[in-house]
Amino acid sequence: VSVEPFRLENGRLLLLDQAMLPTEERWRVVEDARAMAEAIAGLSVRGAPAIGIAGALGFALEASRVTESPEAALPLMRRAAATLKAARPTAVNLAHAVDRMAAAAEKDARSSGTAAWIARLWSEAQAIWDEDRRASRAMAEHGASLFATERRFLTHCHTGGLATGGGGTALGVVLELARRGRAVEVWATETRPLLQGARITAWELTRAGVATTLVADAAAPSLLARGVVEAVVVGADRIARNGDVANKIGTYPLALAAREAAIPFVVVAPTTTVDPRAATGAEIPIEERAAAEVLVFQGKRLAPEGCRAANPAFDVTPASLVSAIVTERSVLRGPFDGSTPIDFGAGPG
Amino acid sequence: VSVEPFRLENGRLLLLDQAMLPTEERWRVVEDARAMAEAIAGLSVRGAPAIGIAGALGFALEASRVTESPEAALPLMRRAAATLKAARPTAVNLAHAVDRMAAAAEKDARSSGTAAWIARLWSEAQAIWDEDRRASRAMAEHGASLFATERRFLTHCHTGGLATGGGGTALGVVLELARRGRAVEVWATETRPLLQGARITAWELTRAGVATTLVADAAAPSLLARGVVEAVVVGADRIARNGDVANKIGTYPLALAAREAAIPFVVVAPTTTVDPRAATGAEIPIEERAAAEVLVFQGKRLAPEGCRAANPAFDVTPASLVSAIVTERSVLRGPFDGSTPIDFGAGPG
Repeated sequence: VSVEPFRLENGRLLLLDQAMLPTEERWRVVEDARAMAEAIAGLSVRGAPAIGIAGALGFALEASRVTESPEAALPLMRRAAATLKAARPTAVNLAHAVDRMAAAAEKDARSSGTAAWIARLWSEAQAIWDEDRRASRAMAEHGASLFATERRFLTHCHTGGLATGGGGTALGVVLELARRGRAVEVWATETRPLLQGARITAWELTRAGVATTLVADAAAPSLLARGVVEAVVVGADRIARNGDVANKIGTYPLALAAREAAIPFVVVAPTTTVDPRAATGAEIPIEERAAAEVLVFQGKRLAPEGCRAANPAFDVTPASLVSAIVTERSVLRGPFDGSTPIDFGAGPG
Repeated sequence: VSVEPFRLENGRLLLLDQAMLPTEERWRVVEDARAMAEAIAGLSVRGAPAIGIAGALGFALEASRVTESPEAALPLMRRAAATLKAARPTAVNLAHAVDRMAAAAEKDARSSGTAAWIARLWSEAQAIWDEDRRASRAMAEHGASLFATERRFLTHCHTGGLATGGGGTALGVVLELARRGRAVEVWATETRPLLQGARITAWELTRAGVATTLVADAAAPSLLARGVVEAVVVGADRIARNGDVANKIGTYPLALAAREAAIPFVVVAPTTTVDPRAATGAEIPIEERAAAEVLVFQGKRLAPEGCRAANPAFDVTPASLVSAIVTERSVLRGPFDGSTPIDFGAGPG
């Protein structure tokens, strides 16, 4: 069964602290929106769909603390929404989910008593979570249908159950093939600087009994050139209308190498990842994270004093390099020309 | 003044242990061929030209221990040569230098007394070192002439003074521009798994007062796509006759990204790096290093038990992606078609 990033236990929300994996499987209690925003910013929970759900749950937790009338609580709830949305800037799912929660809070504020209003918001958050689980399931099935015989996949960063409400995006496709009896093997990039591939992807895959080989990020393109893998599957943090894909830094060189090796480069992401306001990737803001993530590892400085670091968290892969985009609704097959808007089906925006 | 990887002090050979940089500047005494082979295999000394010199010095150290006649010592010296050449398989400079030392040892074995034979071998090793210093100087000047106005360079792994007999290859070009007063800035890839970029390139550059920004390897292609840098300069571990370049793993995606961004991708390496026996890159053996280099960092396991790792030390960049190859003899400008042998000038083979 797929791992999930959250669980509700006796009315408390617990979150698996992904920053501690694989050394330790530590579940943290999260009590309000600020704590959830910190968990998102500190990458205790990560993955575009998962942080959408985290935002919704954080908003519901904040609502649970309200003792006055819902209407009186609205200014506080608006601040909570802003705090949650600011926790990470690139993944659009977070803003989508929080906006949806905030709209529900505003809508029912005058007509409900406090307890009913809180219950309504928990049920909205639970709906967001459930929709994501169903989306993961649908993506896994659509994605699996793309690969009739392939066994050897390369993936980047982490896109498994812990990156979603459960099930996963790109990794969900590979795990679905394994469930169907395909003898899949996965080459996972370690994904510097925070090693989500080494720590989380390898943990989910070995836990599921899938043969897993870790490689340094920079080694992946040569594996493609040498024919070691048959396809590349990745997730997305934001997709522009033309199909340009913002995803974990290091996705773009994999797409270049896949084109060069003439193997499929497949993006798997729910339609909540599509940003209807971004016409192309140039309009997607790229989060620049702390230099210390690159300069320091396990408390030890890697580079000499006086050396700076650049730490963009994402890069943009042009639509023209993408072979297919798998959503919960459909499989969109390239080639994409990068100038025509893609019809993703009835979008969330 | 450029840093050098070795120094002779009161008849003892000292080697700067590059595996300890930048935390510690530790000089180790090396006493015989076996210890030098271990220093090469363990990356206390690395960089294709530097390990050629290290092989020559290791051979001379072994000769210094001979007390019988040179002729009687030849079987032992042949074994020492084999040990040194086996320390690392990809860089051809090591085999070149050791073969040259072995030929000198055989040639003079019958005609010289032991002391004269030893002195002759030290002088041969010193000649190899001096030639490499002169080659670095010439490469720096030829390479600098390629860049009329460029200030912002990206480089990979480490190719400075410590990777050669002094001076450097790709980094030597950038340092030469700085010496001429150009306000150069360097984006250095950290170079996983062993972080030669973070530890050694950043150390040499900041020591020389050059503005240095470290990036994760996977972030470099997006810097090229965004126009942050104007040129990529790298070294080489082995160059095939058609211009295919084996260099540190992760060089190939930089070449792909440079072509995509239409910026120069320049290889700087002495002609001793050219392998006259390799018609193309397909004939270059690629060293596979220990999985532990990827799986374990600073004594801590990064990935879960049961996860394997692949750790190719080099990749091959097709000649067609190389804008120019700078040697001590000349600047060879592409485009190279990959099917025509390149005339590198009178080669070493």
